[in-house]
Amino acid sequence: MTDPAAPPAAEAARRIRDGRLSAIALTEALLARIAAREPVVRAFIHLDPALALRQAAAVDAAVKAGRRLPLAGLGFGVKDVLDTADQPSQYGSAIWAGHRPRSDAACVALARRAGGIILGKTVTTEFATRHPGATTNPHNPAHTPGGSSSGSAAGAGAGFFHAGFGTQTAGSIIRPAAFCGAVGFKPSWGTLHRAGMKVMSESLDTIGVITGSVADAASVMTGLTGGDYGDPEAKPARAPKLGLCWGPTADRAAPETRALIERVATAAAKAGATVTALEMPPAVAAGLEAHPLVMNGESAEALAWELDHAAAQLSPGLRERMEWGRDQPRAVLEAARAAFATARAAFAEVIAPFDAILTPSAPGEAPEGIGATGEPAFNSLWTLLHVPCVTVPVGTGPKGLPLGAQIVTAFRRDREALAWGEWVRQAAG
Amino acid sequence: MTDPAAPPAAEAARRIRDGRLSAIALTEALLARIAAREPVVRAFIHLDPALALRQAAAVDAAVKAGRRLPLAGLGFGVKDVLDTADQPSQYGSAIWAGHRPRSDAACVALARRAGGIILGKTVTTEFATRHPGATTNPHNPAHTPGGSSSGSAAGAGAGFFHAGFGTQTAGSIIRPAAFCGAVGFKPSWGTLHRAGMKVMSESLDTIGVITGSVADAASVMTGLTGGDYGDPEAKPARAPKLGLCWGPTADRAAPETRALIERVATAAAKAGATVTALEMPPAVAAGLEAHPLVMNGESAEALAWELDHAAAQLSPGLRERMEWGRDQPRAVLEAARAAFATARAAFAEVIAPFDAILTPSAPGEAPEGIGATGEPAFNSLWTLLHVPCVTVPVGTGPKGLPLGAQIVTAFRRDREALAWGEWVRQAAG
Repeated sequence: MTDPAAPPAAEAARRIRDGRLSAIALTEALLARIAAREPVVRAFIHLDPALALRQAAAVDAAVKAGRRLPLAGLGFGVKDVLDTADQPSQYGSAIWAGHRPRSDAACVALARRAGGIILGKTVTTEFATRHPGATTNPHNPAHTPGGSSSGSAAGAGAGFFHAGFGTQTAGSIIRPAAFCGAVGFKPSWGTLHRAGMKVMSESLDTIGVITGSVADAASVMTGLTGGDYGDPEAKPARAPKLGLCWGPTADRAAPETRALIERVATAAAKAGATVTALEMPPAVAAGLEAHPLVMNGESAEALAWELDHAAAQLSPGLRERMEWGRDQPRAVLEAARAAFATARAAFAEVIAPFDAILTPSAPGEAPEGIGATGEPAFNSLWTLLHVPCVTVPVGTGPKGLPLGAQIVTAFRRDREALAWGEWVRQAAG
Repeated sequence: MTDPAAPPAAEAARRIRDGRLSAIALTEALLARIAAREPVVRAFIHLDPALALRQAAAVDAAVKAGRRLPLAGLGFGVKDVLDTADQPSQYGSAIWAGHRPRSDAACVALARRAGGIILGKTVTTEFATRHPGATTNPHNPAHTPGGSSSGSAAGAGAGFFHAGFGTQTAGSIIRPAAFCGAVGFKPSWGTLHRAGMKVMSESLDTIGVITGSVADAASVMTGLTGGDYGDPEAKPARAPKLGLCWGPTADRAAPETRALIERVATAAAKAGATVTALEMPPAVAAGLEAHPLVMNGESAEALAWELDHAAAQLSPGLRERMEWGRDQPRAVLEAARAAFATARAAFAEVIAPFDAILTPSAPGEAPEGIGATGEPAFNSLWTLLHVPCVTVPVGTGPKGLPLGAQIVTAFRRDREALAWGEWVRQAAG
């Protein structure tokens, strides 16, 4: 008997729509995977199998009633900074212990509308910042899964669900996805509405998905939004013009990452791509320098109530950064936001001659220990530029943990990011 | 004995900090005004005088303890799309009846941090859209106060508080403020963090304030953000270069508005301003045409949970618009967002030679009846452009109701918007 959870997301949903598979059977298969490994992986902060099966029964009934459900029966993990009406939403903070929102976040409601099953809430670091939860890397529990979308990345890497919702302010989708051997997709800023998200930085926060394949990311994004995210596995008519970009943080790349990106670039060239070294202009580097100011300044405003009424329940590190952000002069924050705008305009010109940029997803493989989630050195830049990014698994590091390569395109070129991401993954072999 | 609520906001806060006035006495004075007129004005959806006085007592204690409170003891009305930890937050919808958030919205927390008293929650239309509440115009209860920030505008016009928080997606701050004879200030998009707001359109929604004077708007914004909003009543070194702009909706101006803006332009020229007619280029008009698409498309995503789980409790009009927005092809929404970006770039060039734009605040005086809140014909454009706007009261219409003139500046020129707004108000006499 085949595993109902084995096929790609689009194929699984098709089988359910066609009556060849039930949402209940698919959900049971995912729950069995979870039961087998969750005690070690700890991807979930809240998991209610009975509730998941009730949702699946409702989807089966809806399919029988003739409703057209693009994501029929697919399993979702929802990062716990996104509200769910039927499950606790605690934002990784004791301040929000036991919180039960009245409504679903917009992206969760869209997933349900399309036939998705919300299997559970996945572990986030504290308010999607640094202080970690208990999740481990599905490839080696002695290593971090990365963060802040720790549970969504670990769960996607472990095959617990078809898609985990993640959010990124610095590197919180791409880095953990790379660490866990998954595909992470951060769409263009503004793609998925943040209603019902515990937003930290309005200028930066972006909702995305972490999946087992690029094709699954495209299927899920299409099903959620009705947009056209294409078929990344369809052979493109030509090879891409790639810009090989180490960026302003080039010196943060570990030796395994240098070797990986050189190998991927060589493989891409061999497969027909033109690969050209690409330096970022000073305006883009200046944008990156402004990132901590905007992130911490805006987050401190978002957490104004927590800072003033529950500061003792914040981790010392977060409290310190929020007090720093709060105390920055307003003019400095405004100047930092203006630096972002200038960087975006400069980047639009730099990327124009290219189809996509090839760049590291993270400094190296997932660090040992689960007390820290690694650094967003190769992520903050693309987040502030608002451009779509995808990380694809293309190798392993010295300890045998996954390594990713990141593909970046121009603003609103999301379909192309997915297409060239899959192209590069296949070229890397 | 003088009215403790009579002085400007900055002066009242100074007296409280200096121990010449207590926050309790000031709050009692505001509550007395409210008690006298609220049965007719109906600005509040929730009002708890005892709670307001407890907040005032805490501010008095904080002042005695030496805390530096820029907005010490000032009264605030909070539009009921903004969360309050100590008062219900019901978003103008039966779907959210009795909702009690755990935390304050970011702007509410900032107001409290600065020493402000949250007197109550003010009436909003349904989710800050069209379906009105029970508020009446403080200048004539047979007329609408405008919307969607109905209660904050009516309360500011009636002198119930120093500042009402409002939000604007199309014309929801400027129009009601003009209708109620108040000052409305919509800062540059992104100025006040929307955490804890029931956001509808992420591309448009902007939090601002409605006050009795431009100086009060500046004082409150400075106290909330720590930014420098200047002293609008300080005499500028020179008169402004004004662009007189009727905009793409010129034909919506009632005769009293045509006469008003001509009179204000003439008075400004007499006071030394250069006043030049300013036409908006096609790219800006195209942005305005895209406004309903972005507003309704994004709002439909924000209300995805409500649409799918409580549609029967939406007003028929809102439900229809949300279903329309939901059913727009994704590519159409993306094209509309791109039209916004193009319009913003075009506008930045058009406004560069000017200090500010003079334009109507609304088609005319407040329409009769409280079943509708008027049209945002002269507001949506500036909202999508993300630029600061202020409406100042400069006359009355044929029925004796207030009329406003609107001053608009370039993005992030908020201090200049307030300064030139006050300059024009004084010039208009």
